[in-house]
Amino acid sequence: MRRAGRRAAPGGAGGADPRRRWIAGVDIGGTNLRVGLVPFEGGRPAAVRRERSRTERGPAHVAARVAAMLRDAAGEVEPGSVAGMGVGVPGTVDRKPGVVRETPNLGWRNAPLRDLIGEAAGLPVALDNDANCAAYGEWWQGAGRGAERMIAVTLGTGVGGGIVIGGEIYRGASDAAGEVGHTSVDFAGRLCACGSRGCVEAYASGPGIAASAVEGLADAGDSVLGAVADAGDGRVTGRAVCEAAAAGDAHAVRVLAETARILAAAVANLVNLLNPDLIVIAGGVTAAGDHLFGPLGREVRRRAFRSAVDACRIVPAELPGTAGMVGAAGVFKRTAYGHV
Amino acid sequence: MRRAGRRAAPGGAGGADPRRRWIAGVDIGGTNLRVGLVPFEGGRPAAVRRERSRTERGPAHVAARVAAMLRDAAGEVEPGSVAGMGVGVPGTVDRKPGVVRETPNLGWRNAPLRDLIGEAAGLPVALDNDANCAAYGEWWQGAGRGAERMIAVTLGTGVGGGIVIGGEIYRGASDAAGEVGHTSVDFAGRLCACGSRGCVEAYASGPGIAASAVEGLADAGDSVLGAVADAGDGRVTGRAVCEAAAAGDAHAVRVLAETARILAAAVANLVNLLNPDLIVIAGGVTAAGDHLFGPLGREVRRRAFRSAVDACRIVPAELPGTAGMVGAAGVFKRTAYGHV
Repeated sequence: MRRAGRRAAPGGAGGADPRRRWIAGVDIGGTNLRVGLVPFEGGRPAAVRRERSRTERGPAHVAARVAAMLRDAAGEVEPGSVAGMGVGVPGTVDRKPGVVRETPNLGWRNAPLRDLIGEAAGLPVALDNDANCAAYGEWWQGAGRGAERMIAVTLGTGVGGGIVIGGEIYRGASDAAGEVGHTSVDFAGRLCACGSRGCVEAYASGPGIAASAVEGLADAGDSVLGAVADAGDGRVTGRAVCEAAAAGDAHAVRVLAETARILAAAVANLVNLLNPDLIVIAGGVTAAGDHLFGPLGREVRRRAFRSAVDACRIVPAELPGTAGMVGAAGVFKRTAYGHV
Repeated sequence: MRRAGRRAAPGGAGGADPRRRWIAGVDIGGTNLRVGLVPFEGGRPAAVRRERSRTERGPAHVAARVAAMLRDAAGEVEPGSVAGMGVGVPGTVDRKPGVVRETPNLGWRNAPLRDLIGEAAGLPVALDNDANCAAYGEWWQGAGRGAERMIAVTLGTGVGGGIVIGGEIYRGASDAAGEVGHTSVDFAGRLCACGSRGCVEAYASGPGIAASAVEGLADAGDSVLGAVADAGDGRVTGRAVCEAAAAGDAHAVRVLAETARILAAAVANLVNLLNPDLIVIAGGVTAAGDHLFGPLGREVRRRAFRSAVDACRIVPAELPGTAGMVGAAGVFKRTAYGHV
């Protein structure tokens, strides 16, 4: 029995072990490393540590630093009370051997990260894709609690996605499922970094929003973004567009409205295809609140079938910045104990 | 225990009942009614009966005719040997009460079809959506045998879809999942009958292909389709485009190539989102064989992630014309006995 074997792995079945108070959740990003201690029964992470990733120094270096951050964090609560560790990485993961196959953002290939971190930290480790972890975190402890069929979409430097059905991460045939950001809503449209065309990520990521703003600048009148583009570093960012829109810049407002329209087409596709109970939208752009969710909801309703729209709530994430750690801890608990 | 209760419904659990030799599969379409007897352990339907649907006469009339067709078919094999009946209809089905909620093609609303047919035929009945039935039929007895995660796409007057995961139809939160035909690959594109824009159905259905051919006629040179459009009834059909392409008409060939490209964008979305083992393509257009599946496969490979493409076969359906009956029978068996 595979599940029984795994349950025994962290050193004892049953619910009475007093040492099992925390699970470490680790989020390895292109910019930051984050380590936090998630209560065994669920909750917000405590003793959070954050450092620059410096992934160019390689996986063994990062593993040693994660172990040091964990020792530091565990010292803040109670040494010896951490049952194990879940680790999320932005890339494809072969979970059985615990190997990171490809991660363009970190530049690693075939890195045996689970064992590297496990040996450095002296703890059992579960490794998973970061978008899966973020989705699982929202399902376990955030906006997705109780949802039977949930899809999470994270808008950031890229557009990530994760699917949780019946309390399990839906992984597909080769652990590659959930790539909402690389579904196309414009088959002949803008070239995406993945090589396809018209992917949601090409429009609704930070760089995608910036590209839309720059494309339209010539016809934009006196947008403040024109001055940004003409300045020394000449960099219009997604954040700059959001800030300009919040300040009432007409061009920026139009760009965000068009972005919401494109995102809505992708969300409507999810609704018609998977008929979920819940779609959770995460990422900095959700700070726009009703300015985003109002138009998004209305456009999804225009596009998708009524019975499927009526069955689906579209809500902002509840764990900004921590969903990845919480979900990684949840993945460890699910793997080691058979439940969360 | 719901499953145990259902198992008892058709009159006895266990596998020894000698009367259980067949399950009736019924496919109620906008054009034809089809009734066939599917072997209890699976196989091709026997004693198939086909009539014009005449659904405008209402559900009670159709129920009586289905019962008569079944009596006739059962007489050909062995009266009393039919365990029950599965019925597929093109529309939204509320399975618990066995009611057809909406079916634009048939013009019925809130029709209690399960009980109407059950009482007319004197047999237990399971009712489901026709695209779900077709997908389940291909999974149970056709191209999808053994697939853990299968998506079926049927190209016809409309574009239907069904998802089978772990041997179960994936139905979603309100039995509305699987609408591959109404996923958009051109968010600002052609208006679809569903009210959205750029849906696959607007391009890859028979009427969609015809519309593409007519749109391009002015620039098409001396296409044979020009003569069709100018003739008395002026109707270019999807079939006419396929026939013209087979005869080497350059305009028709271009239209089909563009159709394959659009279909590929939708299939690539399925691959990146659900990472299936298998995608089954059904419908008349699959007769084009390698002329369709060659370009389709190459374009999907260009668009989707390699690890997901490598894990997925894209194949033609194996039960043209009978998948709906076979799958409806399978749905009955699954509902009544807990397995197929």
